[in-house]
Amino acid sequence: MNFKLTLQYDGTDFHGWQIQDELRTVQGELTRVLSLLEGAEVTVHGSGRTDSGVHAEGQVANVQLQRGMTPQKLRNAINGNLESDLRVLFVDVVPDDFHARYSAVSKTYRYRVVHGRVISPFWARYAYQEARLLDFEKMNECARLLLGEHDWIAFSAAQSDVDSRVRNVTQLEITHGWDGRGLCDLVEFTISANGFLRYMVRSIVGTLLAVGRGEIDAATVARALDTGDRDLAGATAPAHGLTLMSVQY
Amino acid sequence: MNFKLTLQYDGTDFHGWQIQDELRTVQGELTRVLSLLEGAEVTVHGSGRTDSGVHAEGQVANVQLQRGMTPQKLRNAINGNLESDLRVLFVDVVPDDFHARYSAVSKTYRYRVVHGRVISPFWARYAYQEARLLDFEKMNECARLLLGEHDWIAFSAAQSDVDSRVRNVTQLEITHGWDGRGLCDLVEFTISANGFLRYMVRSIVGTLLAVGRGEIDAATVARALDTGDRDLAGATAPAHGLTLMSVQY
Repeated sequence: MNFKLTLQYDGTDFHGWQIQDELRTVQGELTRVLSLLEGAEVTVHGSGRTDSGVHAEGQVANVQLQRGMTPQKLRNAINGNLESDLRVLFVDVVPDDFHARYSAVSKTYRYRVVHGRVISPFWARYAYQEARLLDFEKMNECARLLLGEHDWIAFSAAQSDVDSRVRNVTQLEITHGWDGRGLCDLVEFTISANGFLRYMVRSIVGTLLAVGRGEIDAATVARALDTGDRDLAGATAPAHGLTLMSVQY
Repeated sequence: MNFKLTLQYDGTDFHGWQIQDELRTVQGELTRVLSLLEGAEVTVHGSGRTDSGVHAEGQVANVQLQRGMTPQKLRNAINGNLESDLRVLFVDVVPDDFHARYSAVSKTYRYRVVHGRVISPFWARYAYQEARLLDFEKMNECARLLLGEHDWIAFSAAQSDVDSRVRNVTQLEITHGWDGRGLCDLVEFTISANGFLRYMVRSIVGTLLAVGRGEIDAATVARALDTGDRDLAGATAPAHGLTLMSVQY
C-alpha cells in the first residue's frame, strides 16, 4: 500500500530533509522508523528537500509498505518512535501512482520576520529579526513585479543542477501585524509557486527586505529578473525564518 | 539607579530562575551580565522563582546600578550578552523603594495544553498534551469553586517553607480553540492570584484535567480544598506547559 504522510518539523536540530550518513535528517529519521516497522529497508519520498534549519508545518512524503496497517495505527507507530521535533500529523492511503514529488502541483512557503528591536525567545528559532524601518508600500510594489512566470537565475543558488530555472510564482503576499500570541510585530511573506529553486524563497525575501530598507529600488529588482545578474538581488535571508507550509496535489 | 526589567525566557534549557552554582539559571545569567556591565557584583531580584522548565512572557526583576545608563542602552547591552532564549523586553527607571518581589500585588500564569492525538513540534516545548476527551462544563464548574481565598495546602508542594498557605485566586479562566498559528486545538488555563505556592498552578491544572476526564468530581475537589488532603487533588501537571505571563504592581 502507498501511504501519504503529512509532516511537521522544527528544523533547528536537523541537517535538512535529505538523508545523509552520520547526520540527523528528517528523511533519515523517517527511513529509520519506517524500515523498522516494515522489517525491511524502505524508501521515503519527500515533496522536495528543505535545507538545514528550515521548518515545515505541512511537508508531504509517501512510502510504499508491504505490511498492512490502518492509517491511524501507522501514524501512532511512527510518532511513537520519533523525538518531539518531528511529527506525522496525518496518514492517508493513496493510489499507487501517487508520488510526493512528481505528483506535486505547487508549494507554499512562509518566511517570518520579527519587526522590532528585541526578538522574543519564543520566535528566535522560527523567525529572522529586522529592527530597521521597512517601507511596506515599496515592498508590495516590488512583490507585484515578481509575481508570475520568470527565469529565477538571479534568485537561486549558483550551482543548481536543473535544466530550466523558469518557475511560476502564483502568490507573493506580505502581511504584517501583531503575532497570534501577542508577543511582537511579525512580518510574514507567503510565497506559492509551481516549483522552487534552491535558496529562491530566501533570496526573494532578502531582496524584498533590502527594498523595504531603501537599499535597492524596484527598477534594480526588475533588472535582476531580466538579466539574471545575482549581484543585483539582495542577500539570501537566513534559513531559520523559513517554513514549508503546504504542498498542493 | 533602580532599574525594572521585563523579561521573556524559554525555560527549556534553564534550571529555573534561582541562581545556583554550576547550573544555568535565569537569575544566574542576568547576574553574570549585569555584574559585568557594572564592574562589580550586583544582586538581581525577581518577582519570584520559576521552576526548571517553566517559561516567562512577562517576568519582572529589578537591580540597583551605580553606573548611569539610559534604559534603552542598558537593555541593548544586556541582550547583547545573552543567548537567544532569554531577552529583556523593557527597562524602566523606577523609584528606589521598588522591589520586584515585595512590591508585586498579583501575578498571572498561563498553562497550555494541546488537545489532540498529535502534538505539533512547534508546541512540544511549551504545552502539555491531552488526547482524551475533556468535559469543559465540569472543568468550568470546578474552576468557579476554586476561585477566591482558600488555604491551598492540598494544591502545593509538601514541604513549603511558608507560614500561611492562604492565597486569593482572582482569575481562573479556561479557554479552548484553534491556536493563533492554526496548528492545533489549544486549551489555556489563565490563573491570577495575590501569590502562588510552589506547584500551585500545576496542581490546580492537573486537578482540572482530571475533572475534565471524569476521574475526579467537583465534590472531591471541594473536599480537597476544605481538608487540605493532597491525595484528593489530581496529579501535578508537568512544568513545560507553564508560563508566567505578567506581574502586577
